[in-house]
Amino acid sequence: MAKQTKTPRPKAATPKGFRDYFGTDVTERAEMLSRIAEVYDRYGFDALESAAVETVEALGKFLPDHDRPNAGVFAWQEGEEEGKGDWLALRYDLTAPLARVFAQHRNDLPTPYRRYAMGPVWRNEKPGPGRFRQFYQCDADTVGTASMAADAEICAMLADCMEVVGIPRGDYLIRVNNRKVLNGVLDAMGVTEAAQQADVLRTIDKFDKVGEAGVRELLGKGRLDASGAYIDGVGLTEAQITKVLSFLGARDEAILELENGTFSAQPGFMFRSIFTDVDPANYEHFGHRIREMMESEEGRNRLANYAVLSKLKGLVGESLIGLEGVDELAQIGDLLGAQQYGHDRIRIDPSVVRGLGYYTGPVFEAELTFEILDKKGRKRQFGSVAGGGRYDDLVARFTGQSVPAVGVSIGVDRLLAALREKNRMGGEAVGPVVVTVMDRDRMADYQAMVAELRNAGIRAEVYLGNPKNFGNQLKYADKRNSPAAVIEGADEKARGVVQVKDLVLGKKIAENATLEEWKERPSQAEIPRDDLVTHIKALLAGDT
Amino acid sequence: MAKQTKTPRPKAATPKGFRDYFGTDVTERAEMLSRIAEVYDRYGFDALESAAVETVEALGKFLPDHDRPNAGVFAWQEGEEEGKGDWLALRYDLTAPLARVFAQHRNDLPTPYRRYAMGPVWRNEKPGPGRFRQFYQCDADTVGTASMAADAEICAMLADCMEVVGIPRGDYLIRVNNRKVLNGVLDAMGVTEAAQQADVLRTIDKFDKVGEAGVRELLGKGRLDASGAYIDGVGLTEAQITKVLSFLGARDEAILELENGTFSAQPGFMFRSIFTDVDPANYEHFGHRIREMMESEEGRNRLANYAVLSKLKGLVGESLIGLEGVDELAQIGDLLGAQQYGHDRIRIDPSVVRGLGYYTGPVFEAELTFEILDKKGRKRQFGSVAGGGRYDDLVARFTGQSVPAVGVSIGVDRLLAALREKNRMGGEAVGPVVVTVMDRDRMADYQAMVAELRNAGIRAEVYLGNPKNFGNQLKYADKRNSPAAVIEGADEKARGVVQVKDLVLGKKIAENATLEEWKERPSQAEIPRDDLVTHIKALLAGDT
Repeated sequence: MAKQTKTPRPKAATPKGFRDYFGTDVTERAEMLSRIAEVYDRYGFDALESAAVETVEALGKFLPDHDRPNAGVFAWQEGEEEGKGDWLALRYDLTAPLARVFAQHRNDLPTPYRRYAMGPVWRNEKPGPGRFRQFYQCDADTVGTASMAADAEICAMLADCMEVVGIPRGDYLIRVNNRKVLNGVLDAMGVTEAAQQADVLRTIDKFDKVGEAGVRELLGKGRLDASGAYIDGVGLTEAQITKVLSFLGARDEAILELENGTFSAQPGFMFRSIFTDVDPANYEHFGHRIREMMESEEGRNRLANYAVLSKLKGLVGESLIGLEGVDELAQIGDLLGAQQYGHDRIRIDPSVVRGLGYYTGPVFEAELTFEILDKKGRKRQFGSVAGGGRYDDLVARFTGQSVPAVGVSIGVDRLLAALREKNRMGGEAVGPVVVTVMDRDRMADYQAMVAELRNAGIRAEVYLGNPKNFGNQLKYADKRNSPAAVIEGADEKARGVVQVKDLVLGKKIAENATLEEWKERPSQAEIPRDDLVTHIKALLAGDT
Repeated sequence: MAKQTKTPRPKAATPKGFRDYFGTDVTERAEMLSRIAEVYDRYGFDALESAAVETVEALGKFLPDHDRPNAGVFAWQEGEEEGKGDWLALRYDLTAPLARVFAQHRNDLPTPYRRYAMGPVWRNEKPGPGRFRQFYQCDADTVGTASMAADAEICAMLADCMEVVGIPRGDYLIRVNNRKVLNGVLDAMGVTEAAQQADVLRTIDKFDKVGEAGVRELLGKGRLDASGAYIDGVGLTEAQITKVLSFLGARDEAILELENGTFSAQPGFMFRSIFTDVDPANYEHFGHRIREMMESEEGRNRLANYAVLSKLKGLVGESLIGLEGVDELAQIGDLLGAQQYGHDRIRIDPSVVRGLGYYTGPVFEAELTFEILDKKGRKRQFGSVAGGGRYDDLVARFTGQSVPAVGVSIGVDRLLAALREKNRMGGEAVGPVVVTVMDRDRMADYQAMVAELRNAGIRAEVYLGNPKNFGNQLKYADKRNSPAAVIEGADEKARGVVQVKDLVLGKKIAENATLEEWKERPSQAEIPRDDLVTHIKALLAGDT
């Protein structure tokens, strides 16, 4: 006999590259984002929440990644009939919607417009281990001002964000670079063609992967990669390559010179926050002050950013764009200095190359400097958790007018992972107190108990499964990570008492207590019913 | 000469039916949700955040609305090539993903599983005024228990949620009904066919629209609607119609009888939380107690839910499903009574019909009872802001096993609107203190000022637009809703002072002050630079 054909059951699975977040994964992220939002708010940034869905036209289909200009968004066409209606897509970041919002509402919004936004974004990319197609971003941007004060403010805010979520000073660094300086260095050495400049950018972006020697080869004639394939080089001369590497290493070199007393400043180059009382025309006096400061450690620290900029000024020579870049960095350094953000928190560092291709001016990155062990047990630094910079062309797509803007994006998942590495976030939540059910007909009594506990602010619940097997109730409490179970059978009810099992202590005892300890600190106590709230409060506070 | 053709600029607009949320629209919602999350957590519910995207297969394509079974989701097909890959869609609610999550992770999750979820959902429907295609839901569900304690707990939690977001006791009611009771009433009158029962349900769901007279006609022979079309009736007899309307009006009738002393209980029907000391077999004693209680207002209040249930018991007669429904409601009433949730907060009310078609057992609704003025200036009650009930078949789609579940969904946008109606949410945020720029070269000084203010916890920013026109800076401060502007020109700098403009007072004065008041309370003060933080703090506290 033929069996009846049935519709097969649907598979209970997330689509590839998507995942579910449970319990503390959700609440810890929410708490972190709410702390960051407080900082953004204090800096005068306003919240903005745009929809997940935009028209493909408004979004622009292109991710801000030049290697994969067509890499995907999730898109579909509107309308009942095929081939009609707008194409819609899920946003791939929070910057493209900001550009649309600013263009759409510019007459109602204040200018400059400072806004923050937090929420999921979607990428239609091949998922991989730990790489998901939906993830959170947390951005702050200032639209409508070219002032470096906006860039400096965002760097300061980023430092504040690190501290407010639990990364102490010393465990993070905000590092600042400027696209214009590299362009200036290249101009100064005669590499003026845009395509070749872009090649240089792409190559130094591989520094972390191939190291200095690899970058040297790739900037020159080329190199054999691990697979045996030959990668063509950019074709710079040895002298040019050395200059590019000097740019990348400008900070290290400047610090070294400061330390061994060989640093000498570029004539006429000022740093207002340090030399408030010096006439820049009077180089003699100025050089004297520098030599004086170099004698103390504190002085050398205060000079550090200045020394880096002085080095960069030497490298860009007469290039106007380069000098503009150095001046922008000097302004940022000065503004941050005035707000007491020293180089222990924010420093100018030309070795930051990530994002140089995308941004048009200053670029910055928040890096966590503490060491963690990687999967193979090797020590490494945690690395970057946020990045941003200045971009000036996004709104022009809509209005034709170029609007200057600068912003930062915090990598929510990486920052959360970092906080867990440092044990600054719990990981496992404390479960509810579980009131067990000894007598199904007295559910109302048990509900009254949890109501009392909740009214005292204690997380509590009644066991709602089948109460027949008491062992299952305790197994459930265990799975819920409950700190305590409450038991009231008919006998206890008659005597006006309840039993309270301390499950945390119980676990500890089960693991490693001696018999003596077991006797001394019983993990179960009989208490008067009226003392329930007081007793549980003490138990949760560790006072029993 | 032919002009060069250009790609037209993209339109800066949200897709139809989507919108942007600014400032307090975002932060007030976030605050409300975080307060609700605290309540959910205290009841032992765990957070769950699933992705926005599900497979169409897992989601099921059908919205829980029988009138529009094909009403839309936003869906698209995976994969580079046409016609290959899974169909994916944006979730249309938070219940369908819960069913998938529970089926997928059931071996790791505790059972019963209490979870809450908050986030946007998407509906591919025709947008209308005030009707959007993306909106927030905020759900709590208990999966894996048939115990009425789960239903009662969710009703109690819903009442707590109302109070914690700022709706005081007396301004809301949780009303509870049960699908099984109506089915029982219909069974008892001989309307046993599922299709006809469904017709009755659909008809009484129109009560709000067509009123009692309209429902009477539609349950009987039919009626002419406003457009002149004749709508066929369900075909019940007069006696049957009267019984259905008795069901809907059971609460009003019971209360009336209690008030005028004519109430008499159904023999043998108990309500444990009231008659703790009475033997249900002893009807005489029991009836005596009821008559005693009816003499005081407090007694009548305590009897109210009992009286309603007693009425319902009369209506369902011998119907097993009906008696089961009445018993479920009695259990819920008892459990809530034990937790001190009186009928001033939660009441059994058969006139709740919304959702009766979708849910399988108890149904509940949170209603705001205060009056507001509608657009035409007429008084009306605010109405429903949350609803839920018991549904038992969602997980079976995946596993073949029916899993009992009960849940609630709070209408986030309606509840926010209600809080605004009652002026319990601010609406307009206090903007940042704006430090104006008198001398572009002294940006570092101004940044130092805002840094001091922020470190004191005060929201503050430097004006970052073009500082040339001072009027524009004050206009900007106005647009930002700033409480104060700080001014430090070269003269002030030299004298070690700053000017502070009280913009709130300034607005008031500009509106309605006499000349005397103007002189007495100048809205601008010159203060020592070192007193900046102290002065602004006092100004914000209203002490200047």
